[in-house]
Amino acid sequence: MNRIMLLAFLTIVAVFMPAAAQNGKTNSNKIAAEVRAVLNTQVDAWNRGDIPGFMNGYHRSTRTVFISGDNVTHGWQTVLENYQKNYNSREKMGTLTFSDLDIDIMSNDIAVATGSWRLKRANDEPHGKFTLIFRKTRAGWKIVRDHTSSA
Amino acid sequence: MNRIMLLAFLTIVAVFMPAAAQNGKTNSNKIAAEVRAVLNTQVDAWNRGDIPGFMNGYHRSTRTVFISGDNVTHGWQTVLENYQKNYNSREKMGTLTFSDLDIDIMSNDIAVATGSWRLKRANDEPHGKFTLIFRKTRAGWKIVRDHTSSA
Repeated sequence: MNRIMLLAFLTIVAVFMPAAAQNGKTNSNKIAAEVRAVLNTQVDAWNRGDIPGFMNGYHRSTRTVFISGDNVTHGWQTVLENYQKNYNSREKMGTLTFSDLDIDIMSNDIAVATGSWRLKRANDEPHGKFTLIFRKTRAGWKIVRDHTSSA
Repeated sequence: MNRIMLLAFLTIVAVFMPAAAQNGKTNSNKIAAEVRAVLNTQVDAWNRGDIPGFMNGYHRSTRTVFISGDNVTHGWQTVLENYQKNYNSREKMGTLTFSDLDIDIMSNDIAVATGSWRLKRANDEPHGKFTLIFRKTRAGWKIVRDHTSSA
């Protein structure tokens, strides 16, 4: 490479690299905002007693996996039915909050969200941690794997 | 696109697509085998009382996250120290087995392994589930996030 070509190359790098880095950062912020919006929508749905609305955060697939404690459930429909059976009243659903949210963007279409969950109910207050694996699908960012544990 | 170009295009697709699919499958099998090998190495290390050997399966980074029940630990070094403190004898370490292993290859450098863990000890047999997020690093496939729950 002669000097003029090298100079041209370095100029191109100098001009475009900060823009690329900026785009990467903007894209990460955008992904984090989208994932956060899915979680906020889930919490709002739960707190108005809307389990199908809550379940809309999960990928509607037979391959969606939900692990809670020592139990593994496969498939969106089965998870929905379990929620409808186990939380069949507003009292049982209580008020859900998510906190300590940490969103790790692993690629342009894979992200991991970890955080704390807490259910305020009249007689108890179960709480614990979650790890949610999100994938960007045609229907937007959806949870494909959920591992939830309790205190 | 005229007919000859279309025919040429379809011929190229017909010739290369099965090869690409085969390569994708071979690559998935290779990744699954590599992830499985990391887990087997971890179990072997644990069962000979080698905690640093077990910890070699985790990405040696301050960003590595370990969630167990309601506790979150950040950083490879801190996780190592916790293991060394909590499992300071062969009796406490017991015999570890992993089962029901499910490896989900999310991209060429991200995979998720879920499964069951069990620790056989003289006086108890704790067990539960794990979700491990692997990333392909320069040092090979390593766990970057671990969410473990107990029965």
